[in-house]
Amino acid sequence: MLRVESVEDTISIIIDNFSDYTIASELIELNHSSGRVVTSDIYSNYNIPDFDRSTVDGYSIVASDSFGTSDSIPAEFKVVGSVAMGDISHCVVESGKAVYTPTGASIPDGADGVVMIEYADELSNNVILVNKSISPGENIIKTGSDIKKGSLVVKQGTVLKSIHLGLLASIGVSRVEVRKKIKAGIIITGDEIISPECELKKGQIRNSNGYFLYGALIEMGVEPVNYGIIEDNYDSILTLVQAALENCDMVILTGGSSVGLQDHTSKVIDALGTPGVLVHGISVKPGKPTIIGKSKGKPVIGLPGHPAAVVTITNYFVRKIIDVMQSNTTIPQSIHACMGINYGSNNGRAEFLPVQLQVIDNQTIAYPITGRSFQLFNLAQSDGFIVIPSDCEGLAQGAEVTVYAI
Amino acid sequence: MLRVESVEDTISIIIDNFSDYTIASELIELNHSSGRVVTSDIYSNYNIPDFDRSTVDGYSIVASDSFGTSDSIPAEFKVVGSVAMGDISHCVVESGKAVYTPTGASIPDGADGVVMIEYADELSNNVILVNKSISPGENIIKTGSDIKKGSLVVKQGTVLKSIHLGLLASIGVSRVEVRKKIKAGIIITGDEIISPECELKKGQIRNSNGYFLYGALIEMGVEPVNYGIIEDNYDSILTLVQAALENCDMVILTGGSSVGLQDHTSKVIDALGTPGVLVHGISVKPGKPTIIGKSKGKPVIGLPGHPAAVVTITNYFVRKIIDVMQSNTTIPQSIHACMGINYGSNNGRAEFLPVQLQVIDNQTIAYPITGRSFQLFNLAQSDGFIVIPSDCEGLAQGAEVTVYAI
Repeated sequence: MLRVESVEDTISIIIDNFSDYTIASELIELNHSSGRVVTSDIYSNYNIPDFDRSTVDGYSIVASDSFGTSDSIPAEFKVVGSVAMGDISHCVVESGKAVYTPTGASIPDGADGVVMIEYADELSNNVILVNKSISPGENIIKTGSDIKKGSLVVKQGTVLKSIHLGLLASIGVSRVEVRKKIKAGIIITGDEIISPECELKKGQIRNSNGYFLYGALIEMGVEPVNYGIIEDNYDSILTLVQAALENCDMVILTGGSSVGLQDHTSKVIDALGTPGVLVHGISVKPGKPTIIGKSKGKPVIGLPGHPAAVVTITNYFVRKIIDVMQSNTTIPQSIHACMGINYGSNNGRAEFLPVQLQVIDNQTIAYPITGRSFQLFNLAQSDGFIVIPSDCEGLAQGAEVTVYAI
Repeated sequence: MLRVESVEDTISIIIDNFSDYTIASELIELNHSSGRVVTSDIYSNYNIPDFDRSTVDGYSIVASDSFGTSDSIPAEFKVVGSVAMGDISHCVVESGKAVYTPTGASIPDGADGVVMIEYADELSNNVILVNKSISPGENIIKTGSDIKKGSLVVKQGTVLKSIHLGLLASIGVSRVEVRKKIKAGIIITGDEIISPECELKKGQIRNSNGYFLYGALIEMGVEPVNYGIIEDNYDSILTLVQAALENCDMVILTGGSSVGLQDHTSKVIDALGTPGVLVHGISVKPGKPTIIGKSKGKPVIGLPGHPAAVVTITNYFVRKIIDVMQSNTTIPQSIHACMGINYGSNNGRAEFLPVQLQVIDNQTIAYPITGRSFQLFNLAQSDGFIVIPSDCEGLAQGAEVTVYAI
């Protein structure tokens, strides 16, 4: 029989065992760093902006010169120069003088405000009439108002998104130190499993798990390595897992994870070296006969053969293992919703239930996909799944739930 | 002055102009199809499963033979064979006979139920005692119960996820016809813009927009092509945009999108060929001086230089253009939340407001990032942005909002 762990205990075992896994880092081009995990805190060596900038097309002046002006009582300024984009003005602005300053250009010395071009009429060559009062600092972005020199810009463990790429470029970072991608070996066991391109004989099924896992691992920022389909034979599986474990940071097997005569995975994992099997059985539906093992400090995971269990266990537990290994500090985005109907659940086991989401009156409503819900086709129609705790007999219509992406 | 369009009118103009854009298709390996858009409906040529399968380890029997059995009144069965995984049994199950059938194996002819091994005691060689009654069909997944032969499995326009990869493999598809990736040229204009690795002189700023756009386009499934940074010169920009438009499906420029002397983008887009500029100015903050143009049937987009405007306009309007060009039918996942505080907005212009999300009592609460909110650093701390309509003076605490990802 399986020694079944609860969902919570399984998460604790994952954290206890894989938090200290070491992944080497590499320096990569910023443009290719989206989705990668930053290895250390990144501070800014610069103020951003690192000069006072104009937010409008206009004239830099001494703001107090404009006080009290209006259409009927404009003030006269002598235009003594202009600032080119990307350059500085060599003029100093004194009382009664103005320097043309386009949006984004540097504010010349002496000026403390910019009057918009709309409020400055050209009287004659190099003389303007300003008809609006501006306050000191108006239309200026001050040095360091976006990012102060020395401040923390991106935290260790952040999964970089495009917005971080822009942010890092703005502080002069064009290459970034990230964790190498975790390599995960995929091994599909089962005498009945064939490749999708092969002719199907009765009793055989196609390898959907290998394709799902390949795609899911890429989506999680992991590099998948296919080790193919292997027969239900202890020695063959052991040899292949040993080779995969040598080359990869983790190994995922599907099939043979239960306790029957043809279920070799747990014995193989124990044979790889200590501590071997950590969890054999999780109190969850679907996916109960899941194995989490450890050898050479690396996770070796035995998933059930049932495709729906592979999908949910991968998205919930394998994702957790990967996040823990990478010290990923980015909180995964889940969606909060309300149950659209009453749903009764089996007491005693947590349940992963696929749902479709609908937005009604600005509320996100989750409708369970009922019937024979845990098949690939239904899962592919779902927007994600909810977890019903083991001590819960069901959820009432309107109950708040968290929806995890598939 | 800009001829400003509303958010809604801009979306209509996008749909009217780019829905009929033709993107060639290509046949690619299923393993590499995650994130790609399917060009046509995919139907199943098979029933899944395509044979009756056992859901348990047990014995296939005639179910009626077990009726009325119990621990005290077991029924005796002769075991006449077993089914190997991936194969069929050559035995026919008749009354009083049983065939060993592991989980996932094919149900032999004649049997209409599977009794779990836990309820079958081995009496002697090839004789078992069954002590539990099963109903017809029990512990059997019927042929076609997941997917019926001829049924629609994946719709045209679906963006493939890992779950679809598994699903397609299960129906024997190992390569899939998808749209080629849209190629988008990126051109950064501005005399003040330098590469992040260059030494910064006063008045210059680093090219954050190019890095953000490169990452964002990859995240949207588009292939970015960098055309570098170019000075504010009409002829130079025109020549470069022409070259980019020749090679790409769309071109995105940043900077020079307003109507000042140094703003060449709209004139360049009009010079490329009809119809030229479609939208010059969107009633939205930030991002008002945005240009959407069309030449040779392709979008040419002029974004403002302000990094925050580039981020929001890209995530809202450029994403829409890409979805329309790809006939993407997948609804983008947005999050529904409630405002955590009262927020007053400028009447007359739609506002893109960055928010941080917190889950409190199972409700997702959006807190605006206020102050000088539209700077890259603040955007990078946000979980997304909400859109406050132009005719809305603000949002009260508790108001329902849709949060778009950044």
